[in-house]
Formats: sequence, C-alpha cells, structure tokens
Amino acid sequence: MIVVMKSGTSEAKVQRMVDRIESMGLKAHVIVGTERTVVAAIGEKRDGNRETLESHEDVDKVVPILAPYKVASREAKTDPTTVEVLDLKIGGGSIGIIAGPCSVESEDQILESARAVKAAGATGLRGGAFKPRTSPYSFQGMKEEGLKLLAAARDETGLAVVTEVMTPEHVELVAKYADVLQIGARNMQNYHLLQAVGEADKAVLLKRGPSATMDEFLLAAEYILDQGNQQVALCERGVRTFETHTRFTLPLASVPYLKERTHLPIVIDPSHGTGIASLVPPMCAASIAAGADGLIVEVHPDPPNAMSDGAQSLTPKAFAAAMDQCRKVAEALGYKM
Amino acid sequence: MIVVMKSGTSEAKVQRMVDRIESMGLKAHVIVGTERTVVAAIGEKRDGNRETLESHEDVDKVVPILAPYKVASREAKTDPTTVEVLDLKIGGGSIGIIAGPCSVESEDQILESARAVKAAGATGLRGGAFKPRTSPYSFQGMKEEGLKLLAAARDETGLAVVTEVMTPEHVELVAKYADVLQIGARNMQNYHLLQAVGEADKAVLLKRGPSATMDEFLLAAEYILDQGNQQVALCERGVRTFETHTRFTLPLASVPYLKERTHLPIVIDPSHGTGIASLVPPMCAASIAAGADGLIVEVHPDPPNAMSDGAQSLTPKAFAAAMDQCRKVAEALGYKM
Amino acid sequence: MIVVMKSGTSEAKVQRMVDRIESMGLKAHVIVGTERTVVAAIGEKRDGNRETLESHEDVDKVVPILAPYKVASREAKTDPTTVEVLDLKIGGGSIGIIAGPCSVESEDQILESARAVKAAGATGLRGGAFKPRTSPYSFQGMKEEGLKLLAAARDETGLAVVTEVMTPEHVELVAKYADVLQIGARNMQNYHLLQAVGEADKAVLLKRGPSATMDEFLLAAEYILDQGNQQVALCERGVRTFETHTRFTLPLASVPYLKERTHLPIVIDPSHGTGIASLVPPMCAASIAAGADGLIVEVHPDPPNAMSDGAQSLTPKAFAAAMDQCRKVAEALGYKM
Amino acid sequence: MIVVMKSGTSEAKVQRMVDRIESMGLKAHVIVGTERTVVAAIGEKRDGNRETLESHEDVDKVVPILAPYKVASREAKTDPTTVEVLDLKIGGGSIGIIAGPCSVESEDQILESARAVKAAGATGLRGGAFKPRTSPYSFQGMKEEGLKLLAAARDETGLAVVTEVMTPEHVELVAKYADVLQIGARNMQNYHLLQAVGEADKAVLLKRGPSATMDEFLLAAEYILDQGNQQVALCERGVRTFETHTRFTLPLASVPYLKERTHLPIVIDPSHGTGIASLVPPMCAASIAAGADGLIVEVHPDPPNAMSDGAQSLTPKAFAAAMDQCRKVAEALGYKM
Repeated sequence: MIVVMKSGTSEAKVQRMVDRIESMGLKAHVIVGTERTVVAAIGEKRDGNRETLESHEDVDKVVPILAPYKVASREAKTDPTTVEVLDLKIGGGSIGIIAGPCSVESEDQILESARAVKAAGATGLRGGAFKPRTSPYSFQGMKEEGLKLLAAARDETGLAVVTEVMTPEHVELVAKYADVLQIGARNMQNYHLLQAVGEADKAVLLKRGPSATMDEFLLAAEYILDQGNQQVALCERGVRTFETHTRFTLPLASVPYLKERTHLPIVIDPSHGTGIASLVPPMCAASIAAGADGLIVEVHPDPPNAMSDGAQSLTPKAFAAAMDQCRKVAEALGYKM
Repeated sequence: MIVVMKSGTSEAKVQRMVDRIESMGLKAHVIVGTERTVVAAIGEKRDGNRETLESHEDVDKVVPILAPYKVASREAKTDPTTVEVLDLKIGGGSIGIIAGPCSVESEDQILESARAVKAAGATGLRGGAFKPRTSPYSFQGMKEEGLKLLAAARDETGLAVVTEVMTPEHVELVAKYADVLQIGARNMQNYHLLQAVGEADKAVLLKRGPSATMDEFLLAAEYILDQGNQQVALCERGVRTFETHTRFTLPLASVPYLKERTHLPIVIDPSHGTGIASLVPPMCAASIAAGADGLIVEVHPDPPNAMSDGAQSLTPKAFAAAMDQCRKVAEALGYKM
Repeated sequence: MIVVMKSGTSEAKVQRMVDRIESMGLKAHVIVGTERTVVAAIGEKRDGNRETLESHEDVDKVVPILAPYKVASREAKTDPTTVEVLDLKIGGGSIGIIAGPCSVESEDQILESARAVKAAGATGLRGGAFKPRTSPYSFQGMKEEGLKLLAAARDETGLAVVTEVMTPEHVELVAKYADVLQIGARNMQNYHLLQAVGEADKAVLLKRGPSATMDEFLLAAEYILDQGNQQVALCERGVRTFETHTRFTLPLASVPYLKERTHLPIVIDPSHGTGIASLVPPMCAASIAAGADGLIVEVHPDPPNAMSDGAQSLTPKAFAAAMDQCRKVAEALGYKM
Repeated sequence: MIVVMKSGTSEAKVQRMVDRIESMGLKAHVIVGTERTVVAAIGEKRDGNRETLESHEDVDKVVPILAPYKVASREAKTDPTTVEVLDLKIGGGSIGIIAGPCSVESEDQILESARAVKAAGATGLRGGAFKPRTSPYSFQGMKEEGLKLLAAARDETGLAVVTEVMTPEHVELVAKYADVLQIGARNMQNYHLLQAVGEADKAVLLKRGPSATMDEFLLAAEYILDQGNQQVALCERGVRTFETHTRFTLPLASVPYLKERTHLPIVIDPSHGTGIASLVPPMCAASIAAGADGLIVEVHPDPPNAMSDGAQSLTPKAFAAAMDQCRKVAEALGYKM
C-alpha cells in the first residue's frame, strides 16, 4: 500500500512511519516528491492494516494496491466457476434462467407458476417461503409449508428450487428442501448467515446489497468461499440511488466489471432492479447482451392478486415473450440458453 | 391511498378498480379530473395493499396517504420516549453521551477508555465484542471475553455498556453483560434479530442502514416496538452517497425530521458519519445544536494502534475538548448534558 | 393534484384550503378519510402551483397527478420522433451510431478517426472543439479551428458532425459547422443555452445531467421544444451514485422508461457511462438490446496518447468488433443498424 | 502520481511505462511489490496527465497524490479569506447572514423582506431577479426590474444585495445592481460563466452543484480565482442522494472538511438543503456550531403566497427566532455574529 504523508512532514516523522511499517512485517520504501513524500509499504496483507496507518496524524491518506478479496478473484482462479444443480447451469457459457413468484402463496399458485416458467425455458424456480418484509404488518411468507410446496413443484417439473434463507438457524431447514440457498440483499453483510451457508452443502445465490460497493460484494462472497463452499453465484439486483422512477437503479456494467475480477458467475435480477413489469423484458435482453450468466425473474399467474411484488411480476405470457427475445440475443452472440 | 388511473382509462375499467378497492374492505371515491381519473381508497391499512393495486395495468401509480409505521409515530404517542439505564439518559431534554473504542482489545485498553470518557462527561461506554467486519480477514472481536471486560469497566465506572449484537442466537449472551443492545447499520433489516431484541428486556440502540429511507428506519424500529420493547433509541450514523471525501454523508436534518414524526429519541454517530477524527468535534457540536438527544463517539487511548477504526477515533484529550464545546452549545440552547 | 392535510386539521382550515384552491381557478373536492382529510384540486396546471400549496402550515404534502412536461410527452405526440441529418438516423426503428474522439486534436487525428468509425458503420462523427473541463489547467479544446477540422472530416466522409456548444453566444458559430448541437451533461439545466439551441435550425443531442431526475431531463428537453425546435434526441450518459468502480452508473432501464413517456429518441453513451474502455463493448450491445435508438461512443486512433478521456476510448479495432456484436443483436431483434 | 501496473506485467512493459513517464518530464521510480509493481511519477502537474497514463493496457489504476486545485488550497494561502461588502462580512471569525425571498416579486415584498431580515440581524439581502426554473412554465423572475428593486432595498436598508447571474452576457447588467454575484448550483460547472464572474469586480457566492465532489467544487472556485477575482465564498446547499424526505441532503461535515483544505469562507444554505421550513431553524444553529462562516436563508413575508420556494421559506418571525438561537450558539463558541 502507498502511504501519502501530509505536506511538510519532517524527515524524522517520515522515519517514524518507516519504523511503524517495518514493525508490521512490511518493507518500507520512501519516495520524496516535489510537494509530498510517500512511503510504499511492500508485502501488503488483506487484514485491515491500512486503517491503522491512516490514523497517524502525519498521514494524508493510505492507498491500497491490492484488491481486498482473494479467493473470489480471477487471480486466484482463472477459469470461470459454474454453478450447476439439476438442469440449472449458471456460468461457463451457459445462461441459467430462474423464474417464479415473489412469494409462495398456495399449491395451485406455485405449481401453475412452475409449469409456466418451465414451458418458457426456465430451469430454476424461485419463490419465497421466508419473506423479509420492510413492514412488520406485511405478509411474512408461508414458511416451512411454503418450502414443502416448492419441493413438490420441483418433484413435478424438475426445476431447481431457489429460495431465501434469512437467519443462520434456518439454514438446515431451508437446505432440506431447496437446491440453491438465496441470500437476500438486506442480508449481504449478515456475516453469521454467510458463514452458515458457507458450511452448507448447497449452492448459494448471493444478492448484492443496495448500497454495497463491488469490493464489499466480493468480500461477502469471500466469507462464503472461505468456509469451503465454492458453489456461489453473484446476483446484481440494482442499487439505491437518487432515481425514484424505478424501484432501484440497475447497473448492467456490473456484469463485465465483475467478470474481469472474479471467476464467479453473475446473475441479473431485472424485477427488483426496475420494480416495473413493463421494463423487465427489455432489461432481460440487455442483461444477456451484457454477458450475464443467468437471470432471476418474478413471474406470477395473476400479478394484480399477488401477495407481494405484483407491480414487478410478469404474467406467464409476458415472460414467455421475454424469453423468446433473450434466446434470440443469446443465439446471436453465441451463448447457450 | 390515492390510485391514479392511466390517461384514457375507460369508465368500465375505473368501475372495476372501484370494485377491487371495495373487495379489500375499503371505501372508493372517484374523482374525474380534466386529464386523469383518480380513485381515493378510504380506510387504508398498513399491510401492503398498495403494491397489489399498483400492478393493475390501468393504474399509473398509487400514492399512500398514511405513513407506513404506527407505534413509532408521534400520532400514536405524543410525549417523547426517554431511554434511561444507569446514569445514561437519552431524550426528554437530556443529552446522553456514549463513548469508547470501536473494539474491546484488552482489559487495560477498555478500562483506560472508560475512565477517560467518564472524566469527560460520558455516561455510556461503547465497545465492540462481536465485530461485523467487511473482510473475513479482519479482526472479528474478542467475543464473550470482550463482553466480560465491558462489564468489568461498568462495575468500576458506573457507565452503561452499549455493545453490538449481530445474530439472534447471541442476544441472550450479550444481554447478560450489556445495558444497551446495539443493532448495527448492516443489520437494520435483519428482521429475526430485530424481533429477538424486541423480546429482550434491554434497551436497544438501532442504527440506520446506510441506504435506508426514513420510512424503512422507522419500520425497523416498529419491528422491535411491536414485540413489546419500548426502550428504543434511533441512531443516525450517515448514509452512503456519491461523496467519498468522508466515509459516509451525515445528514443532521434527520434529527428535526425524526422528532416531528416519532417519539423515539435520536442519537448521532459522528465517528462513522464522517470517518475522519478531525471532523468529529465540529459535528458533535452541530448535532447538539440540531437537537440530538445523544451522541455515540469513538474514543481510543492510542488511535494509531487501534485494531479497528483508528482513523475516526478521538484521543481522550480531543474528546474532552469536544465535550466542552458541546456543553457550551447545550447550555446556550437550554439542554441538559 | 392531491393536497394531504395534516392529521387533526379542523373543518374550518380544510375549508380555507378549498377557498385557496378555488382562488387559483381549480375545482376542489374534499375526501374525509379515517385518519386524514385530502383535498383533490381538479384542473391542475404545470406552472408550479403545487409549491405554493405545500407551504401552508396545515398541509402535510401535495401530490401532483400530471407529469410536469407536456410537449415532450407521448400523450402530446404518440408517434416516435426521428432525428435525421445526412445519413444519421436516430429513432423510428433505426439505430444511429455516432463515434469519434473525445476532443479534436489535429487534422490527422480527426480524419483518421472519421474514416475508421465510418468503416465500422457509424453515420455520425463526434469530437469536441469547445471542451468543458473540470480543471482550468486541462486542455480546453481547439475551438473554431477544431470545428473547421470536423467540417472537413464531414466533407470527406459524409458523416454528420455532432459537437458540443457550451454557451449561448457560441451557438451561431458552432451551428455554422456542426450538424447536431450537443448539450453536455453539465449544461442540462443551463436554460439560456437550451433556449438558444431551441431557436437554432439544427438538431440537438441533449445529455442527461449526472443527477437529473427523469422529470428534470424531460423538462430540459421541453425548454428546447418550447422554442419550436423539434429535432431533439435524449442521451443517457450515466448518473452519479455511490459507485466508484465505474466513472458513472449507467442505468439502461432509462431506455424503456423514457420510451413509455416521450416520443423523443434515446441515445446511450457507454463511454462516459462506464469510463473504462473494456466495459464499453458489452454495454453497447446491452444498449441495443434494451431498445436504444442510438449510441455515442468515444473512439481514438491512439487512446494512450489522447489529450482527454483516453481511458474510456476504444481503438478503431475494438470499436469495429463492438459494432459487429451490436449488429448481431440488432438483427436478432429486428432493428435497422 | 502512483501508477499501479496490472498483476503479471513484464519488466519490459514496466520499462516502457518508465519511458513514457519520463517523456512527460516527470521522474519515474519503480517499486516491485510481492504481487504488483507500481511506478511513482515524481513532479506531478495538475493538467490531466493522469488520464493519459490510465489508458495504457498494462495499467490497473493511477492514483493522484496532489489535490487537483492549487490557488484555492490552504497550502497556497494559509490565512482565511474574508468576503466583505458593506456590512456583510463572511469569514475570519465573522458570520455573515444573508436572507430574503427566493424571488423578487414586487416593491412591497422586497422592501418588507429587507426590513424584516435586517431587524433580525442579517447584513445581506438575497432575492432572485433572474430565476433558473426546472420547468419552462414556472415564473422566471422579474429580471432587470427585480434588480432595480433590490438596489432600492439596499439604498434604504444598507443590506448588501446577493443575487444570481445565470449567463455570461448578463454579468455586466447584474453587477450594475448587485454587491455579490451568486452562481447557482445548476451552473457550478458553467465554465464560461465562472470565467465571466472571475473577470468582474464583484464578490462571488459559488453554490455547490447537487452532485459535485469537493474536488470539483474547489476546481470551479479555481476557475474564478484564476481570473484574478479573490472575493469568493463557497456555499454548501445540499447534495442529491437517495433521500427524498428532504429536498436535498445537507452534509454539514463539508464545513470542517473545506476549512482544512481551502482558505475560502463557507456559507450554508439550509433552505435548499432541506426544502422544509420547519427544519431550517435547527439546521441554521447546527451550521453555526459546525463552524460555518455564513448562512443564506429564504425568508418571505407571506410564504403560502410566495411565487417560488414557499415550502422552504421562513416567516420573518420564525427567522428572527432562528437568529436568536444562532446568536446564542455563536456567542457560546466565540464567533462574531
């Protein structure tokens, strides 16, 4: 890392910084510029040393050279990771489509959804059984009963079940029914939960927090990988910005940016990313064109009567049309879908 | 709530919306404007009905009239809530000062910190035993050993212990040693944790998430209040914006805004709110002038050797000077501190 | 518009609001809800009445029903506007490609750029002669000399020249050489400039300000349209958010959102939207898939030696490859490019 | 500046970067780390060299060491600048209060406002004659007639007139009547306008753009200073963030942050910073406590009938009460007001 000293720092104080850096087991290298002196600390680790140096009164700023994540990086593993469960294949040139309702509401609703999304080309089924809701007065999900219905839908259709787990003590229960454990955006930095799914023997779909930086996102993945679970897919679902015409702002540049830095596959969630059903199909096609490894899309047999997220849910018909467009783009660009 | 129909919606479709609203147990009231028709739905509840209506294809938007929170609102309880533990008193005209290191590091460090902040006027002691860290490679806290040291510091100084609890299964353990349970910013929407502290018999300091709206913040408090725990203080600690010269952007207008809407007291965290030690003292004074009911400030006996957050920690001397300025402002404006 | 009264407002005060609304030439309609009274004001205009009502002490908030823009709206003109100059055609199913260097630097540089982008399929040539630069110490452009070189490049290649005008007094000069007047992001709300290009007999490319809402963006277009100039294309070039890994955050959902609300065509600028050359080609393809009517891309014969924006400029070779991908997507989805 | 090479860059390529840096007249210094090589470039200028290096394909990132502004910096001038016109004194321990209506509406309105704000302690009078309005349909100001009324108000009260100039060609006209030329937030990067006021013989109040970084803000000031005009005050008026409960988010930490970096005085605008009249008085007091050198506050004799910004305007009575609180804080902290 590079330690930039304040303007006018004396040689004695620069020497003190050199001593400090060396006491941390690093090599110090002083560069005297025309207006500032900087000290390069060689042998940088990823353990938060940086903060310590920044608190010295003669230090203007500390600039890290290395990315803070390691196991998730392309440098650690150059070939892309593929998350694969049943027929759902995300990454390595294959685009995996996960679709279904926001919440599991009833046997009919989830079965009807599963059949419809399968017919349109999905290989994964989404559906919330444990629902994180902003208000304590909103529907909180069918819980274990919902998980059972999801498993029944898988048994009939062969779709891989992707569903959210909200707290460490539920991991075992959810893993009993699900094929992919989803970590919701609100829990991206719930470290006990990340460690718990890191120990589970299930693939994980990790959603980006609405104000998480890319480094924070990859460090959250690192918590999971660090426990030995390598089946991790990242999900960009939009970030919170000043824009209010959409529910979130969906930055598709995350796809190529992440692909340069990590071997983990990238899934896009255009439903939460926009919050408006009519914007979802063009953003599905755009995601494919940007190089996404998968999509997760909210589809409901009857959006106006959905118990949650109706405004951003596609009808089965609209979803099928969107998938047709996506397939055309995928074929044009040489991806499998 | 007000349902705004799309331009050119037929009378028959407006009537269908009226039927739908009435089927939800609400009264519908149609207003035909010059360019749009709107339907007012009277008898609005706080259970998410709104989303449902928004998904109808003839609906342009749905505007809620009521705030989504209830128990936390000024309308539900007009007199201000005071959070009071030992000598720490937050609210009702009293300003409570909580100070101490980011992390508990050793017996000497926490005792020295406790004595110093008490001497400067604090009545609460902060210190992390369980630390949520962005990187899995950073120091994660002393855990139960840290809690014991905090309790020992309380025994010696009489300061109320404020410390973070990160996961529901730790609530009992942390509550054994702490006087105030802190919910960190990353966990503001960890609903199982909110419910768990809602059931505990301890005061709670709830930090605002870095991208939480005011409604989301108050609904998070509502999850705690809803379990019967009324001893809740809100903590503004800065939001994530495009500004990078400070760690977060600290919006002090939150203080008067929240005071108009809720009876809960408001604490400001200028340490995380700025991330730079030299900016903390003026922001302490500004918080008092804005009407804050409390402050939570990072103070470390030796910031350059702190194991976390050194760059934003005050020395005991700088903290004492900051408290002197705060007291002058408080006295000038008639607050107790 | 809907005026929401504060909780507990007396009938007399509601009546005063009714009188006030009627004095503005609107019809008032009172709806008494269970917890709040709201007054609907029928006959809403777009002249800022709303602010006035919001300042009454008994008013909680005022909700506008109509969009604030009019001439730019789909309701005012249902068929899409096409901006067409020479062979550059933006909108109505045709995708117009504008490419070239950030700044005009020399005759060789602009001619070489023009030939290269034309060969790759562009029909418009970008290049800055008057450069708005954040620092007064940066290269400010070749000014009129640059305009002449652009015109010479058009004469040789037939490409339509798109270049920025920064201040009203330059409009005449720039219009002498350019085919499309570009309003830069920093000037989106420079109203005297908008009016000046509104009076010019040239097409306009209006860039979105980095923190402009969609309503503000369309109202800026409205300033131009209002002067009688109908040849306006909107350009999404990314917004400023907390993300720092890219120069700006590029929200492609702007494309379908704007298409629902306005008849004006939408161009995407993935160069400024990302700031990183390697991210530009996938975002070009994604823009086409999202339904964009055009692209504006920075291309330089020798990016490492560019006088500005080198980091986000494509080489001619990379640009040609990106255009190939775009054409595949456009063909797959049935657009002309 | 520090050039961080990509991981695995060959020695030959590092040497090429060294040659490139030396060809720019800088000295290069290579540091070989454990995972990366960095090249320090000594003799950094402020002319945009950085961008050029960043576009080399072997470069991961370029980190500038120096702040990009120079004349505005504390390093260039250590003693604080005081902006002083008539009795208005901003900086150097004196707090200058500017108050008045958003727009000049009539002789009575501006005179009544001027008398009221003077009685409450203001020494500057604000009032818009040329109004930048988001919508072309809103009131655009009284123009020269408004300037004359402002001058008449100054003649009667002795208050210094602070008013906005929107375009270079109006600078002469506005300077004829005004004492301080205000650059509005929308025009912070209108460089021709900055240069024009830089050449005028009048003090300037430069408002921060709603998404301007601190570096951009200080570089905008640098454009003015660079023309020889040293009478510049900076005005923080709030930034655009995801927060919608206030009109903008007002970051008071800007005050101590800017004071560390620049000698220019800092004025706070809590009216635009919050957009809600009831939040203005506490934010006035908080600004003083944060160390602000001045305030600019919207005051209107009859806010509900104001032609613009009524919702954020104080009545003369509320303003007088706010000034009383501010004076108490100023006295407690030893500032002149």
